[in-house]
Amino acid sequence: MSEVKSWVCTDTDENIWLEALELGAEDLGVADMSLSKRTLQGGLQSGVDLIEINNGDLSFCVLPTRGMGIWRGNYRGEYLGWKSPIRGPVNPAYVNLHDRGGLGYVTACDEWIARCGLNSIGSPGEDVILDNSGSPATMQLTLHGKIANTPAYYLEIESSPASETVSVIGHVEETGLFSPGMRLSTVISTTRKSNKFTIQDTVTNIMGAATELELLYHCNYGAPFMERGSRLELPIREMAPRDAHATERLEVARGYQDPTPGFVEDVFFYELAADSDNKTMTALINRAGDKAAVLRFNTAQLPYFTQWKNCAAVEDGYVTGMEPCTAFPNLKSVERDAGRVIKLEAGEQRTFELEVETHLGEQAVEKVVQEIAEIQSATAKKMHPGPIDRYSPG
Amino acid sequence: MSEVKSWVCTDTDENIWLEALELGAEDLGVADMSLSKRTLQGGLQSGVDLIEINNGDLSFCVLPTRGMGIWRGNYRGEYLGWKSPIRGPVNPAYVNLHDRGGLGYVTACDEWIARCGLNSIGSPGEDVILDNSGSPATMQLTLHGKIANTPAYYLEIESSPASETVSVIGHVEETGLFSPGMRLSTVISTTRKSNKFTIQDTVTNIMGAATELELLYHCNYGAPFMERGSRLELPIREMAPRDAHATERLEVARGYQDPTPGFVEDVFFYELAADSDNKTMTALINRAGDKAAVLRFNTAQLPYFTQWKNCAAVEDGYVTGMEPCTAFPNLKSVERDAGRVIKLEAGEQRTFELEVETHLGEQAVEKVVQEIAEIQSATAKKMHPGPIDRYSPG
Amino acid sequence: MSEVKSWVCTDTDENIWLEALELGAEDLGVADMSLSKRTLQGGLQSGVDLIEINNGDLSFCVLPTRGMGIWRGNYRGEYLGWKSPIRGPVNPAYVNLHDRGGLGYVTACDEWIARCGLNSIGSPGEDVILDNSGSPATMQLTLHGKIANTPAYYLEIESSPASETVSVIGHVEETGLFSPGMRLSTVISTTRKSNKFTIQDTVTNIMGAATELELLYHCNYGAPFMERGSRLELPIREMAPRDAHATERLEVARGYQDPTPGFVEDVFFYELAADSDNKTMTALINRAGDKAAVLRFNTAQLPYFTQWKNCAAVEDGYVTGMEPCTAFPNLKSVERDAGRVIKLEAGEQRTFELEVETHLGEQAVEKVVQEIAEIQSATAKKMHPGPIDRYSPG
Repeated sequence: MSEVKSWVCTDTDENIWLEALELGAEDLGVADMSLSKRTLQGGLQSGVDLIEINNGDLSFCVLPTRGMGIWRGNYRGEYLGWKSPIRGPVNPAYVNLHDRGGLGYVTACDEWIARCGLNSIGSPGEDVILDNSGSPATMQLTLHGKIANTPAYYLEIESSPASETVSVIGHVEETGLFSPGMRLSTVISTTRKSNKFTIQDTVTNIMGAATELELLYHCNYGAPFMERGSRLELPIREMAPRDAHATERLEVARGYQDPTPGFVEDVFFYELAADSDNKTMTALINRAGDKAAVLRFNTAQLPYFTQWKNCAAVEDGYVTGMEPCTAFPNLKSVERDAGRVIKLEAGEQRTFELEVETHLGEQAVEKVVQEIAEIQSATAKKMHPGPIDRYSPG
Repeated sequence: MSEVKSWVCTDTDENIWLEALELGAEDLGVADMSLSKRTLQGGLQSGVDLIEINNGDLSFCVLPTRGMGIWRGNYRGEYLGWKSPIRGPVNPAYVNLHDRGGLGYVTACDEWIARCGLNSIGSPGEDVILDNSGSPATMQLTLHGKIANTPAYYLEIESSPASETVSVIGHVEETGLFSPGMRLSTVISTTRKSNKFTIQDTVTNIMGAATELELLYHCNYGAPFMERGSRLELPIREMAPRDAHATERLEVARGYQDPTPGFVEDVFFYELAADSDNKTMTALINRAGDKAAVLRFNTAQLPYFTQWKNCAAVEDGYVTGMEPCTAFPNLKSVERDAGRVIKLEAGEQRTFELEVETHLGEQAVEKVVQEIAEIQSATAKKMHPGPIDRYSPG
Repeated sequence: MSEVKSWVCTDTDENIWLEALELGAEDLGVADMSLSKRTLQGGLQSGVDLIEINNGDLSFCVLPTRGMGIWRGNYRGEYLGWKSPIRGPVNPAYVNLHDRGGLGYVTACDEWIARCGLNSIGSPGEDVILDNSGSPATMQLTLHGKIANTPAYYLEIESSPASETVSVIGHVEETGLFSPGMRLSTVISTTRKSNKFTIQDTVTNIMGAATELELLYHCNYGAPFMERGSRLELPIREMAPRDAHATERLEVARGYQDPTPGFVEDVFFYELAADSDNKTMTALINRAGDKAAVLRFNTAQLPYFTQWKNCAAVEDGYVTGMEPCTAFPNLKSVERDAGRVIKLEAGEQRTFELEVETHLGEQAVEKVVQEIAEIQSATAKKMHPGPIDRYSPG
C-alpha cells in the first residue's frame, strides 16, 4: 500500500519557501493528475502565489496569497468562475480595504470562490470594539472582512496514491494585538477524474478570550452556468428578499436574465431545507439544462444561504453568487442583534465543509434536480413576500 | 527595409515577465540608442520596475509600477525633473492614499511627470457614489486619484529601425467591481538623438456604463530650469489665480524666486490660446534664457492648464508644475458642477498627446519664445485680477 | 592593527542590493561572531529583510524592512522578546495603519524592540496639520506613528576586529511633500561575547522648516523575564498612573501577575532619577532574582519612561514594555500642550542612545539592583496617588 506524499511549500516558522513546484502524475503517484505552483509577477499580481491542480478532468487554481481562495477552474472545457472587471489575482499589498467608503474589497475580487470573514462579513459600516485600554471605540468595518486579503503562512501539498487524492493544505491567520485572532486551516482536495473538489475549513480562536466569527463562501459563477434562462435550484425552508429592490424582482428571483447594463444587484436570503443529516445542496443550472454548478454543504455548519444576482453588463461583471454562510451579509451589528454571529470561546474550533461540483449532460443535471426535490419534499417552503425583520431589519 | 522589433516584458494574461532586460544599439537596430529594464530593491523602492531609455542625447526613466509615470531624465547633462523630499520611486504597496486626510499621494510623489486621474484629480474630500446596491454613498476622494499608484499589467518595448524610434508601451487599469473602470494605454516614444519624447495616451471606459474621467499631467521641474529669474512662457486666452493667496502674487505669477523656506504654493489656472489645429505649447525658461523645458499639447484634448509654483526650500521640494489637464485640480464635485468632468460612455475612448522637449542654447530658446508669441498673437488675453467662480467657486 | 570592514547591503541611491549575506568569524575578523542576512518569504513576512547577529553568547535579529526594529533575541538560551499573537515579522506593505480606527499598528507588532515615532507616538486621534495650501486641515494620527512600518533605504554591516565589535547601520526616512521629514540613522552594535547591544540613533530634520519629533523605544519582554512575581526596578523621581484603571492597581504597579485572560493593560508614567551624567537604567527581574533584562539610557535624551503592563493570557500577548521616551504615548495634542513634543529646526539633529543588556545569575542581578538603588539614593521619589494633569490631563 502506498503512503501519503507531502511537499511543504511555505512554512514561515521553519523558513521554508518554494518559489516554484511542478509535480506530475509520477511525482504525485496518481495517474492523470498534476500540480504546479508559481509566483505571479507584473501588475497587481506581483508576488501572488498560485497553485494549479489538474485531476485529469477538472483543474482549478488556489491562491495562498489571497487567503486560500479559489481563483478559477475548468471542467472538461467549461469555465468555472466569472469574468470580473478586475485583472487579478490581486496581491493584498495593493488593496486598501478602507477605500471607497469601506468597499475596498471590490477593487480586488475576481475569485471563483472567496471566503468572507473571519471576524466580520457583509456591508461596511461602524462597529464598536474594545480598544487597548478596554474602552469602547468606534471602528469602520470593511466589506466582507479581511481573510480573502490575508496571505497564508503555511502551505503544503499532499498526495494520497491509495485514494488517488491530492490536497492543498493552507493556514491563514487573521489576528492582531488587542484584536480578534482566528486561524483558518483549510484542506482543499480533489480525486482523480472527479467532477468536484472539497473544501474543509477549520476555524480556531487562537486568542485567550472569546471572539466573534462570521463566515461566508462567496461562490461566483458567470457563463456558461449563468445565462438568460438559467435557474437556481435549492431546497427552501424559508426565503425573503433583502430589500425593496429585491422585492420587486421576487417573482423572478431564481431565474436569470441576459447581461443588462445598469442592472442593480438583487440579494435574496434563505434558510435551506436539508436531509436528516443536515446535508443540503444548491445548483445553478443553464438554460438547456445540461450544465449544473452544484454546492453541497451542511446546514448545521452553514445555516444560511445568500443568493447574489448581478445580471450586469458582461464588462461590469455578469455574475451570481451562491453563498452558504453562518450569517447574512448585513452590517455586523445587525447580525449580532439577530443572534447570527457565532461566539467562539478561547481555543474553540468550528469546521465547515463545502463540496463544489460540476455536472454536465442532461441526465446528470436531471439527477441533481431530483436530489434537490427530494430534500425539499420533506419541508414546506415559507416564502416571504418582502423583507422580514428577522433577516434584514429596517 | 527593416521591421519593427518588439520585446514583451510583462503580460499578466500570458504569464510573461522579464525580470531584467538590456538592449543595446544592435539589439534595437538604432545607432546610439539603448534601453535597460530592472526591478529595484530596498526601501520603499522594493519591487518597482524601472525602464531607462537613452536616445544618445536624452535619457529618461519610465515607471511601469507607478502607472507608467516618467521618473526623471537627462538631456546633454541637464537634469530633468526635480528633487523631491521623497527617496523614490515608491512602490504603491507602501502608499496609503487615505493617509494625512486623503493627502497620501504626497508620501510617494517624486516623478518628473506623473499622471493624475483617472476617475478623479485634485483635492481630497467627499464625493457621492452609487454603492453596490445602487444607493448613494459618501466616499473620500484622495489627492490626485489612483492611476500614478497603480502598476501596469502589460509592458512592451518596440523599436522601429526605419524611423529610429524606440517606444515603451504600457497598459494600466483603474477598476473595481461596482466601480469606475478605465484602461490607460500609453505609448512613450523617442527618436535617436532627439531632444524630446512623446506620450500618447488612450483612455478607454472598459465598463458597461458611462463613467467620469479627469486627467492631469503633473510635469514637474526644479533646477536648472526653475531658478530665481526663470519664467513661464505660454499663450494665454484666459487666466485667474486659484485663491486669495495666489491673487497676492498675481503680478509675479509667471516669474520665479529663489528657494524660500516657508513658501506656500501658488496655483494659477489657465485656458491657453492655440493655433488653428488647437496646438499649443508652454515653456519654462531659465534666467539666462538658454534652457527651456517645453510641453506641446492640444487644447481640444487638454483644454485647461494649471501652473503650480512651489518656490519652497530646496529640501522641501523647490519645484514648479506645468500641468495640462482636462479639468482643474479642485475637488471633483467643483469640477463636475463646472461641467469640466468628462463623461465617457461604455467603451468610449479618448486620446491625449503630450510632447516633452528640452531646448538648450539662446537661439533655440528664442525660437521657442517666438513660437509662443505667434500663437498668442491671434488671441487676446483675458487676465482676471482674482479668483473667478467659473474656475474655483467659493 | 586591523581595519574596519564593511559590507553595504542596501543603497537605493547606488542601486546596491544584496539578497543574502553570510559572514562567519573569519569574514568579520572577530572570533565567535557571525551574521546572516536573508529575505523572508511567505505569508505576511514576504519581502521582509532580516539580519541575524550572533556574538557568541547573544544573538538578535534586526529588521531593516520594519524601520530597523529588533525582532527577537537569545542570550545563553534565554529568549529575548515576547510572544505576540501576530506571526511576524510583517511587511509594512500588508499593514494599514488606519485600520481599526487608527490602531492598525497592532496588526503588525511582534518586535522585541520597536521605535515609535518619528512625527508622532501614542494614541490615534485627530490632529491639525497645515495642508499643501498652508491651510489648517484635520488628519487622523495613527497609533505609534510610522517609523516602525517604514523600510530602510540604506543598510550596511561594519566589523571592527580591533574592538571585536560588529555593527548594523541603517537609514530610514519618514517623509513626504508638504509633510514632516526626518531621517533616522541607526548604528546597532554588539561586541564579542558581551551580554548587550547598543542602539545609537540620530534623528535629523531633513526638511527646510522646523518639525515635531516624538520618539519612544517600545522594549517588550515576556517570559522568562516577565512572570508572576517578577518586578520592575527603576530609580524614580516622579511617577503617576495614566488613568483610573491604572490607579486601581497602583500598589502592584511594579510587580507582575500570572497571565490573566481578560486583563486590561495598565500604564504608568515616570520621570526617572539619574546620575550626575544623566545616566539611568531600568530592570525587569524574574521571580527567582536570577534573570534581569536591563535598559540603560540618558534622561537628557529620553526624559520620560512608560511602563506598559499587559498581563494578558499567553495567547493574547503576555508582555510588559519598558519604554524610554521623549514624550508620553498620549494623543499628540496632549503632549504638545504639555510641552513634551520636541521641535527640530531645519537640519537639526538629536541623538538617542539605548543599551540593552541581559544579566543572568543571582550575583549579576543583585549588582543591577544595587546600581539602581545607588541612583535612587540621591533622589527623593514623588509618587502620585492618581493621574496628574501634567502627565495625562482629563
